Amino acid sequence: MDGAIPAGLLAAVRSKRPLIHHITNSVTINDCANITISAGAAPVMAEAPEEVADMVAAAGALVLNIGTLSATQVEAMLAAGRRANDLGIPVILDPVGAGATPFRTAAVLRLLDALEVAVLKGNAGEIGVLAGTGGSVRGVDSGGVTGDPVETALACARAMGTVVSMTGAVDVVTDGSRVYLVKNGVPAMDRLSGTGCMAASVTAAFVAVADDRAVASAAALAAFGRAGERAAAGARGPYSFRTGLFDELAGLTPDDLGQHARIEER
Amino acid sequence: MDGAIPAGLLAAVRSKRPLIHHITNSVTINDCANITISAGAAPVMAEAPEEVADMVAAAGALVLNIGTLSATQVEAMLAAGRRANDLGIPVILDPVGAGATPFRTAAVLRLLDALEVAVLKGNAGEIGVLAGTGGSVRGVDSGGVTGDPVETALACARAMGTVVSMTGAVDVVTDGSRVYLVKNGVPAMDRLSGTGCMAASVTAAFVAVADDRAVASAAALAAFGRAGERAAAGARGPYSFRTGLFDELAGLTPDDLGQHARIEER
Amino acid sequence: MDGAIPAGLLAAVRSKRPLIHHITNSVTINDCANITISAGAAPVMAEAPEEVADMVAAAGALVLNIGTLSATQVEAMLAAGRRANDLGIPVILDPVGAGATPFRTAAVLRLLDALEVAVLKGNAGEIGVLAGTGGSVRGVDSGGVTGDPVETALACARAMGTVVSMTGAVDVVTDGSRVYLVKNGVPAMDRLSGTGCMAASVTAAFVAVADDRAVASAAALAAFGRAGERAAAGARGPYSFRTGLFDELAGLTPDDLGQHARIEER
Repeated sequence: MDGAIPAGLLAAVRSKRPLIHHITNSVTINDCANITISAGAAPVMAEAPEEVADMVAAAGALVLNIGTLSATQVEAMLAAGRRANDLGIPVILDPVGAGATPFRTAAVLRLLDALEVAVLKGNAGEIGVLAGTGGSVRGVDSGGVTGDPVETALACARAMGTVVSMTGAVDVVTDGSRVYLVKNGVPAMDRLSGTGCMAASVTAAFVAVADDRAVASAAALAAFGRAGERAAAGARGPYSFRTGLFDELAGLTPDDLGQHARIEER
Repeated sequence: MDGAIPAGLLAAVRSKRPLIHHITNSVTINDCANITISAGAAPVMAEAPEEVADMVAAAGALVLNIGTLSATQVEAMLAAGRRANDLGIPVILDPVGAGATPFRTAAVLRLLDALEVAVLKGNAGEIGVLAGTGGSVRGVDSGGVTGDPVETALACARAMGTVVSMTGAVDVVTDGSRVYLVKNGVPAMDRLSGTGCMAASVTAAFVAVADDRAVASAAALAAFGRAGERAAAGARGPYSFRTGLFDELAGLTPDDLGQHARIEER
Repeated sequence: MDGAIPAGLLAAVRSKRPLIHHITNSVTINDCANITISAGAAPVMAEAPEEVADMVAAAGALVLNIGTLSATQVEAMLAAGRRANDLGIPVILDPVGAGATPFRTAAVLRLLDALEVAVLKGNAGEIGVLAGTGGSVRGVDSGGVTGDPVETALACARAMGTVVSMTGAVDVVTDGSRVYLVKNGVPAMDRLSGTGCMAASVTAAFVAVADDRAVASAAALAAFGRAGERAAAGARGPYSFRTGLFDELAGLTPDDLGQHARIEER
């Protein structure tokens, strides 16, 4: 993909500053708020059933993340998601730990059934479980997929009728026909809690300002990965890396992203 | 205001180390705990209805923050607030996102009606909404007020019978008659999630050791803003700024605050 | 204790990478996830009653931390704990704020009564309260014990039939007969929210790979304290210390721990 495309989307996030409504887990909720700001968007977290439909109406995108799911939260996700669907606001679903317990898997399938999900962003194990083609998840960590990862992502996208954004050493983004491989990022991102959740927040920021959700998802992962590459240079461990990750995404210029985004169409 | 006043209050926080009971949101709860320690006080977070009245009895101040409000949390806030009122323990209310949804606005008005609130600390949009003089809020961000900000703060303080601490590029603190303008702080504080919440925690620490709540609120904002000024010098982005903000508040001396607090009485 | 013992346990955590299931508070939940990774293990946080029994079945240890306890959470802790007991998975209980309110004290006693707890890790005040020998707690901070700390820990271990790991300037670990004094660590750890919670997570990682729970608990505190010692060298305040603490634990080598662990058997 021509670097001008992710560069232009990053510039659009910065100029439009979309509001990103999150219903998310309690572990990485602060990371998600701050990475949204670093990307150039504005976060709001709200999950009371009494207010989610009102809050999402002002948003440019809605992130649903099941990392510490409760039954009440599922209801809030459904209410917010339905309102988002009615208003044409894209919904990004992060199926954290799907496959680790029946409760999580069932909740994700229910959300996918009830809502029009614009982007399903998960790790390989989660996507494999949801595609039904084979995948394993331990806690919230991917144990990988059975067979070829690209085929898994394609199968999931076709079955669910959504863009699938499958993170890993190489990220795979597909709408069921086109396939983008995103090769930015560094291994240090796997040794920090919440980078997957943050990737969903950045994806939401990009999807909020774009018409093509597959392209926006790939561009978001390239931007986040590029910030990680820049942060890794000065890091002495996971927390100095974390400091750098937020600093570098906030300071990332469209020019730098345009030159260094590594998105290949397969 | 003579710098000796905020300097003396900072020294008092450090020597008395008041316990600050928070019922707060899940996004910035860790930031609030750590900034309370950096200010020199001791945090405790507790929101089970079964224990809030017991916990607040040991506290020097109570912070109520509605950033991720639930119906259960409102009941806990009322229970803790009533006990605090009975015992003469000051209540600091942070109406995060009031105006963004009817649920939040109604909850704040209910808390203001049921409790004696010592300090209402919000951004301009929130205070404008609560004053009824006009204000706008998107998510949790201020969209500004209709008319003059000082008049908005005065109107709110008079209508609610409380000290209003309205944060912004210049903070406005008023008890309905006196008006303090606090000119410390840096723009980087607006690009970090939770600085508003942290300001409420620092305010609570200062109010817990002072008789004059308007003076204590202004002094707290000066101290927090001064830490931000010192942190900005060495920051390369929002997270290195954050690291500096906590470090600098923890290391802030009464002497430095006395020399650099910029509090003007209007 | 010969340094080869904690060194060997650290190496075992790194090679086995046990899954540590946490049911914990909302203040330090992110710290606990990341410190678990820094220790070399894998965290998962899950507290929905619908899934805790499934999730814990995949874990190497279960951490129960009552820092922001709710009635629902107690039920989840009981369900997860019973399943852990059935499967022989060790349970680490952190009685945060026991003694500060009757609700917390009663919940801890209920958990200790219903579950076989492998390690009870608390500060001196909490252990003194639970031992019934005298202790005071303000908020979540220890106010110390009545009499000799080692006798308090021994009394608690004998009364509860568990290993007690009592943190302080010198940590005391005992199974009711053997007593280990751990002398690693620095005062900066007391000026950061969540270091007690993190100590429980690191303890769980070590206990998950060891047969001797008292030895594993002492080794964990030595490793965590050693990381603190290394971090303190470069810190300018609590947050640069925090950055260093995670970086240094992640980078801590078995060799360094073997040479610098200071665990004395009394």
